[in-house]
Amino acid sequence: MRIALGIEYDGRAFCGWQSQPNGLAVQDALEAAIAQMAGTPVRVHAAGRTDAGVHAARQIVHFDTEAKRPLTAWVRGVNSFLPPSVAVLWAQAVDEAFHARFSATARHYRYLLLNHPVRSALLAGRVGWHHAPLDLASMQAASRHLLGEHDFSSFRAAECQAASPVKMLTRLDIQREGDLFYVDASASGFLHHMVRNLMGALIHIGKGAESPDWMAHLLAARDRTIAPPTFMPDGLYFAGVSYPAAFGIASEPTFRHYLV
Amino acid sequence: MRIALGIEYDGRAFCGWQSQPNGLAVQDALEAAIAQMAGTPVRVHAAGRTDAGVHAARQIVHFDTEAKRPLTAWVRGVNSFLPPSVAVLWAQAVDEAFHARFSATARHYRYLLLNHPVRSALLAGRVGWHHAPLDLASMQAASRHLLGEHDFSSFRAAECQAASPVKMLTRLDIQREGDLFYVDASASGFLHHMVRNLMGALIHIGKGAESPDWMAHLLAARDRTIAPPTFMPDGLYFAGVSYPAAFGIASEPTFRHYLV
Repeated sequence: MRIALGIEYDGRAFCGWQSQPNGLAVQDALEAAIAQMAGTPVRVHAAGRTDAGVHAARQIVHFDTEAKRPLTAWVRGVNSFLPPSVAVLWAQAVDEAFHARFSATARHYRYLLLNHPVRSALLAGRVGWHHAPLDLASMQAASRHLLGEHDFSSFRAAECQAASPVKMLTRLDIQREGDLFYVDASASGFLHHMVRNLMGALIHIGKGAESPDWMAHLLAARDRTIAPPTFMPDGLYFAGVSYPAAFGIASEPTFRHYLV
Repeated sequence: MRIALGIEYDGRAFCGWQSQPNGLAVQDALEAAIAQMAGTPVRVHAAGRTDAGVHAARQIVHFDTEAKRPLTAWVRGVNSFLPPSVAVLWAQAVDEAFHARFSATARHYRYLLLNHPVRSALLAGRVGWHHAPLDLASMQAASRHLLGEHDFSSFRAAECQAASPVKMLTRLDIQREGDLFYVDASASGFLHHMVRNLMGALIHIGKGAESPDWMAHLLAARDRTIAPPTFMPDGLYFAGVSYPAAFGIASEPTFRHYLV
């Protein structure tokens, strides 16, 4: 039987999604907890592999098991074996044709950026921070150069293992509420560090170091070495995955709204 | 010269505000950082002494120093010596008559409560959690019995050192947004564990274990032993302090608004 889970995690506690020789990965914690509930080892597959320090508001995973358990066991039961920094939000039985990674048609990320002269303690590790004023309109204008299908080599980490640097970016919305910027990005897939590298370039333009049109130049150059540095992981959230409707998995990213 | 600071902290990293024989207190971290900037030891006084695990969105403190520094040194300079879980938000020179604790006319707390069948990983340690449905109207009705000047012995921790159990509760507002409850409490002062004990009773009523009017009975009993248990510290935020206007310190609690 194939089970899909929606999961949430605080990335600070982990070396990233994927198991590594050193350090605890979200995958390790989740596989151990599910194995306790199933009574046998399981292998979990995720829609997106997040880096160290990157969070997930709605990661989707699947696993196969012979164990017969009510769906609540895969939620509240598994949660009882997980550390506080990881939680299963829901579970559902899915068709064997469903694969959390390979069935995905789009992935959604949100970056939360605090733009304030002083850093925040309550948001530490949970937002990126830039102390100097950023110009929203410039960042929005720059973002429009990136929409569509492009070779994103200028925003690709050296260690990226994607088969191609060409991706279809369908959304790059930037909004501001008070001193917080919300950057929402959707694409068929993302290159390694792509969102953090896009953030580095957007902030470079937002602080006035380059014009919005420089983004087109940077994109066309297909050269990571001339791009601004990778921005910090702290504010990056894996926000959701889209699947073909036939699989019956709600595909819209969702966020909790809260005041702190 | 007397300096007032607005500070923010994530209470999970500390044994509470006040220095203790064992464990790191927010006071210890702050005094060490200010001493580095001042070049001499300082003693810091806070408006409210928070417990272990309780956060502050806007704690007010003051200290005296002979050191002549620009105000930015007491903000960004001190922040550079503080761990990520504490931040100075602002600094201002104040009259020698000002005392962060004794000049306060009201203190404001907010409790964030997640009411959802499943716990949250992203909000872990930052909200209280109750899994069963809570009735907002019952909690609001119960809260109205508590407004005004009362003997709050039923909500007072055994180790409370306040001179009197009589406090003036001027605000106890409960609102809901989605699956989050916001409980805002204001009083001249609070007894030890008072907000967490009020939360325990409000949740007891919210889940239907008692009627809203039972709160009046509980208050009148002035007996901690018949009250529901102290609720978890995770969702409690010290949200602000009111001072006489003559001191020129903005007195309204403020919160950042953010989606996660």
